Amino acid sequence: MTRGTTLINGGWVIPMTDREVYEGGAVLVKDGVVGAVFRAEDELPEVETVVDAAGCVVMPGLVNTHCHSPMSLFRGLADDMPLASWLNEHIFPAEAAHINPETVRAGALLSCVEMLLSGTTTVCDGYFYEGEVAEAVVETGMRGVLAHGVIDFPAPGVPDPSENVEKAAAFVEAWKDRWPLVTPSIFCHTPYTCSEKTLAVAKEACRRLGVLFQIHVAETEDEVQRLKEERGISPYQLLDDLHILDETTLLIHNVWMSSRDMDLVARRGTTASHNPGSNTKLASGLCPASALMEKGIHVGLGTDGAASNNNLDLFNDMQLTAKLHKAYSLDPVAMDAWTVLEMATLEGAKAIGLGGSIGSLLPGKRADIILVDMNKPHLTPTHNPVSHLVYAATGADVRDVFVEGRQVVKGGRLLTVDVGSVMAEVNRIAAFMG
Amino acid sequence: MTRGTTLINGGWVIPMTDREVYEGGAVLVKDGVVGAVFRAEDELPEVETVVDAAGCVVMPGLVNTHCHSPMSLFRGLADDMPLASWLNEHIFPAEAAHINPETVRAGALLSCVEMLLSGTTTVCDGYFYEGEVAEAVVETGMRGVLAHGVIDFPAPGVPDPSENVEKAAAFVEAWKDRWPLVTPSIFCHTPYTCSEKTLAVAKEACRRLGVLFQIHVAETEDEVQRLKEERGISPYQLLDDLHILDETTLLIHNVWMSSRDMDLVARRGTTASHNPGSNTKLASGLCPASALMEKGIHVGLGTDGAASNNNLDLFNDMQLTAKLHKAYSLDPVAMDAWTVLEMATLEGAKAIGLGGSIGSLLPGKRADIILVDMNKPHLTPTHNPVSHLVYAATGADVRDVFVEGRQVVKGGRLLTVDVGSVMAEVNRIAAFMG
Repeated sequence: MTRGTTLINGGWVIPMTDREVYEGGAVLVKDGVVGAVFRAEDELPEVETVVDAAGCVVMPGLVNTHCHSPMSLFRGLADDMPLASWLNEHIFPAEAAHINPETVRAGALLSCVEMLLSGTTTVCDGYFYEGEVAEAVVETGMRGVLAHGVIDFPAPGVPDPSENVEKAAAFVEAWKDRWPLVTPSIFCHTPYTCSEKTLAVAKEACRRLGVLFQIHVAETEDEVQRLKEERGISPYQLLDDLHILDETTLLIHNVWMSSRDMDLVARRGTTASHNPGSNTKLASGLCPASALMEKGIHVGLGTDGAASNNNLDLFNDMQLTAKLHKAYSLDPVAMDAWTVLEMATLEGAKAIGLGGSIGSLLPGKRADIILVDMNKPHLTPTHNPVSHLVYAATGADVRDVFVEGRQVVKGGRLLTVDVGSVMAEVNRIAAFMG
Repeated sequence: MTRGTTLINGGWVIPMTDREVYEGGAVLVKDGVVGAVFRAEDELPEVETVVDAAGCVVMPGLVNTHCHSPMSLFRGLADDMPLASWLNEHIFPAEAAHINPETVRAGALLSCVEMLLSGTTTVCDGYFYEGEVAEAVVETGMRGVLAHGVIDFPAPGVPDPSENVEKAAAFVEAWKDRWPLVTPSIFCHTPYTCSEKTLAVAKEACRRLGVLFQIHVAETEDEVQRLKEERGISPYQLLDDLHILDETTLLIHNVWMSSRDMDLVARRGTTASHNPGSNTKLASGLCPASALMEKGIHVGLGTDGAASNNNLDLFNDMQLTAKLHKAYSLDPVAMDAWTVLEMATLEGAKAIGLGGSIGSLLPGKRADIILVDMNKPHLTPTHNPVSHLVYAATGADVRDVFVEGRQVVKGGRLLTVDVGSVMAEVNRIAAFMG
């Protein structure tokens, strides 16, 4: 936590506590926490440090609810091909050949750098050697809900699948109280790559350790069809039969859901991650996110890994979300800008179990704050800054980033690690691939 | 035309003359024209000026086949509402109240600035007071196919609709041989806002003057349905009955097309502009661009105006194109990166009648060239620069831009006009709206 008081002053403050823009407002940060949000007419306190945010939007840092951060190593390695070829002929072999603790660390560092520079302050991640991801998150000054992966095949760092849950639990124990910005978690790959026993045991470990359970579900029509043919149930019913659907489970993708699945998920208070960039690029389809939210389900946005998106810029996924849902429903009112901005902030925070501490600039919450510079040709004029954030901005417009009150990006430059070295290390590793 | 010789050296040269990346290649520019493209192993000539493009993609400037550049004035003024409310309650009244020669010039300048900075070197535009747009295009150093609008209602600068074609033809005559980078054209708004007589007379004027005829067509399901109920034909059949479909007509949007419409358009050699950002944001639907291209129709990409997109970054629309068509078809092989890159360059050039002079780095063509800096976290590693251009880059990654051999952007800064003044003027105008 950063000690001291800072006033971020001017521009348009969008606290996401209501659907209101405070033009000419200000935010007080005190000891890493949001102290107060001021309107233009309020008197401002005397503080140690003032950050001039004239011409900028001041808002909560974005929350990326789904990523495999080390996979930036494979960005652009394989595109424009069927999911099975992509996975079996490219990604799995590349992982087998190139994934080790050093490469995981390098890829995760690159992803953290990319995310911070584009305004994402929190990532919900899942991979193998996740301890290395945690080290990268700490080093770059980001916040993360970080999960060790569980799959019933030999995996990087887990050659014997019978130890998969045990290894994941050991990761959670190692990181449970190690660093305030890291919250450990467990990630079961899918209901078709984990046995019922694995799923149940992993969820039981999550309950015992008090952490979030994550799982990819209903990403493709095929996997849902197969389960239906084999067992006559949906993957959601399968998970519910195993007592996995509760308020501390995050369901990722959710492209092929029935109305009954949605009702079940809503009833259990389970949350969801919507990954429009990945789901469109891999031609999986579109998550019925509006319907989920209408049923009261908290839906956050996720980029997925850079091997399937191919960037980690949540502004990109915000725009995609707003446009895709309009086009699919042929309803121009669907997925308005405020709704999408909430998904990328407060709803995302709720989806990953951090709704009480981040996602809005409510006094008392952690001071994860970004400044987006509106003084750009493509953001001029500023009739409506909320519209611009969703429909016209990109991560390159992010000027400053604070995590827990600590400034980690200033004037578009990262203060915590040397970006050139991070890129050079990934380029060195990538030279051996392809 | 810029006199002298320049060698743009290094990086990945992507000439778009074939589907090949020349790693470590170079491009020779001589007197505003592409002189030669070299591979890494070729001997390079001695020249006056060398531009170091190490770490950059060197490729043809992007071609935006559809824009209403002055409408950047209304960016974000009205979003998330039905097309009819957007148009009738917001855009038309704003145009009536605020559009005059000075505001058109200011809005067009802002759009040209935004487009050049994001790598678009040619815009195909249509609006009223288009002479002011032409002045803005000249001032910023861009290339344009610029059309005066024709509509059977009183319009800005054309209070008497009976003079609409005459006014458009006068614009063409005024700009026919005035500036080598400006090609005039005539734009009929739609088949339902222009009478058959207006359409026929406008096309006849285009034939006489030897210029491109442009028209919005089949943007919404409703307009196609209405024509079918009233006349029993599609808008394409209507245009063909009026002898408008030929090789010098550009059809814009094309969302609601039958297979028969596509065959007709293909038979006539007519070209098309695909506007995925606008068509999704306004919930119009998706142009069957892959099917059109399979039938041999040249399809370019367009941003549409900033009031309906809401930015003019063609990288954004490239990514959207690649992802949307995959998601709609559930085919991950659909709209691969090379196809999309061709749409944004050579196919776009062909669609607007400039296929012989721009759109690829073929020796003898005009030297419209951009450098995209790949030395960024979100473009690292560079397994495949073509994939990065479509799936990961944004206009903010454009480093240098040359139009007809003249450098207009250097290190991300515009050299031709003062960007701050352009933004200030638009902000001044916008302060009276909303």
